[in-house]
Amino acid sequence: MRALWLEAGAARVGDRPEPSPGEDEALVRVALAGVCNTDLELARGYLDFRGIQGHEFVGVVEAGPAAWLGRRVVGEINFACGRCASCRAGLARHCPQRRVMGIADADGAFAERVAVPVANLHAVPDALEDEAAVFTEPLAAAFEILEQVPLEPGARCLVLGDGKLGLLVAQVLSAAGARVRAVGRHSAKLAILARRGIETLEAGAWQPDAERADLVVEATGSAEGFARALAATRPRGTLVLKSTVAEAPRIDLAPLVIHEIQVVGSRCGPFEPALAALAAGRIEVGALVSERLPLSRADRALERAAAPGVLKVLVECAT
Amino acid sequence: MRALWLEAGAARVGDRPEPSPGEDEALVRVALAGVCNTDLELARGYLDFRGIQGHEFVGVVEAGPAAWLGRRVVGEINFACGRCASCRAGLARHCPQRRVMGIADADGAFAERVAVPVANLHAVPDALEDEAAVFTEPLAAAFEILEQVPLEPGARCLVLGDGKLGLLVAQVLSAAGARVRAVGRHSAKLAILARRGIETLEAGAWQPDAERADLVVEATGSAEGFARALAATRPRGTLVLKSTVAEAPRIDLAPLVIHEIQVVGSRCGPFEPALAALAAGRIEVGALVSERLPLSRADRALERAAAPGVLKVLVECAT
Repeated sequence: MRALWLEAGAARVGDRPEPSPGEDEALVRVALAGVCNTDLELARGYLDFRGIQGHEFVGVVEAGPAAWLGRRVVGEINFACGRCASCRAGLARHCPQRRVMGIADADGAFAERVAVPVANLHAVPDALEDEAAVFTEPLAAAFEILEQVPLEPGARCLVLGDGKLGLLVAQVLSAAGARVRAVGRHSAKLAILARRGIETLEAGAWQPDAERADLVVEATGSAEGFARALAATRPRGTLVLKSTVAEAPRIDLAPLVIHEIQVVGSRCGPFEPALAALAAGRIEVGALVSERLPLSRADRALERAAAPGVLKVLVECAT
Repeated sequence: MRALWLEAGAARVGDRPEPSPGEDEALVRVALAGVCNTDLELARGYLDFRGIQGHEFVGVVEAGPAAWLGRRVVGEINFACGRCASCRAGLARHCPQRRVMGIADADGAFAERVAVPVANLHAVPDALEDEAAVFTEPLAAAFEILEQVPLEPGARCLVLGDGKLGLLVAQVLSAAGARVRAVGRHSAKLAILARRGIETLEAGAWQPDAERADLVVEATGSAEGFARALAATRPRGTLVLKSTVAEAPRIDLAPLVIHEIQVVGSRCGPFEPALAALAAGRIEVGALVSERLPLSRADRALERAAAPGVLKVLVECAT
């Protein structure tokens, strides 16, 4: 089958063997797959991954348990062992033996077909189009914040970064009742939020310590973002860190202690509220799609996703 | 009156004017005052403080409201405005207009007398000796952790650092029902905890990621402590940061995001539980007193407090 395959630092479209699903796995024919910033980092050598990339997808079950055959699905990306202490404690997304679809030890969704553990599948409501359903995984990462941090009604939230994740986070917090201000560098991206009634501010006009927020979400993906986010968090406030950066910047942690700030690292999240929000049309994702490219040009899709101003690039996999 | 006074980077014992208490303040004749690591940092230029140092004390009210006259007291160190949004929200210790005794804009307790807001005073139970009561302020900083972080019964806690604060934190967590392991560099200091039934380990024999803890408290006061503490925290676990260091070390924050760790900065704490624990004899502080020196030799007390192996040095102020 055709797939985008990463090896020795190069992502190439080529012919790869069909997946052979394990006992508890389903074979999914991929309709659409989204490019995430992590895919770009992997292509630069992050985590030293080799294999088929892609972890945001929507598709149809072609083989597996009868109850799932022919159903349209999305899938959680952490393939957990299901038996260890973490899994038994309900923390399967932190299973130390986990494989991660298209990221670590498991082939991903930039392919005609992908093998996914049945336990990871979620059925897509009929009314939800593929182009929206493919956002379930990144939107779940935004909902993870609500699972980790109690959000007071009317809390003053600041979202730093107007990339794909920042735009989803700002909408999720706003829908949850927070007073959100989003800070970014791209007026066209911020406009997507402004049209939803969310206050936006260009980064150049923003002073981190002018008005400190109860909850700050750092989603700029930049090494200097953490220090700015810390300066923008009120005493006893919470800073949610979404960005992972390859660099190890110099960080003065004294303000964190003096102001008793809480920093919460945040990664993958729950699919149920994400699917429900998409099905109800509570989160705008259509405006986040910049381009669609066929699987034969998936390498180009990664290039386009790295270009300034581009938001989500989708790959049409099994057409 | 005699006092230890910091100016232009030098701490000197000399004659200073008597304090003139404000309308809502009491005049306290200081019996004993403790040397804290912050005092040593201030003497090195931290926060650019000038004035009389000392913020851990026990004494007797000499002037002030009738209800307090002659009473033995300890006092909270953050002198809040009482009117701002932080104060009204119950966060007086984070009042942005606050003065801090012996640390910022307020004279401290290495003196015969000190002025303290009446709102900051706590009466010392008769049965509690001065030498124990003087530990109320640092012990409150240890209790602050329980105010910030819900502690599950039997939680696996790791306390890094066997300095004064580390020894108090380990005892507070153990008394609260946690399974505590304390890691330090000084066998004599660790022995104080071992005698209380707390598991201890020499830092040289410790591997940060060998057995990750639910709750890790970083109290080493070293710049590299944060990264080690992060490596020792389990996924979704909590790292309480007590150390403030002058350096800004390079920090790789990716593990914090990947493992969704929560970092909680922690500073001053509540006096009530600290006084109650001291009065009930639940926390060993006697073994933490290394030396007592008269106020006339308070400069020497700071030197001694900085020496390796020395724990708490007390200054006898008004004898």
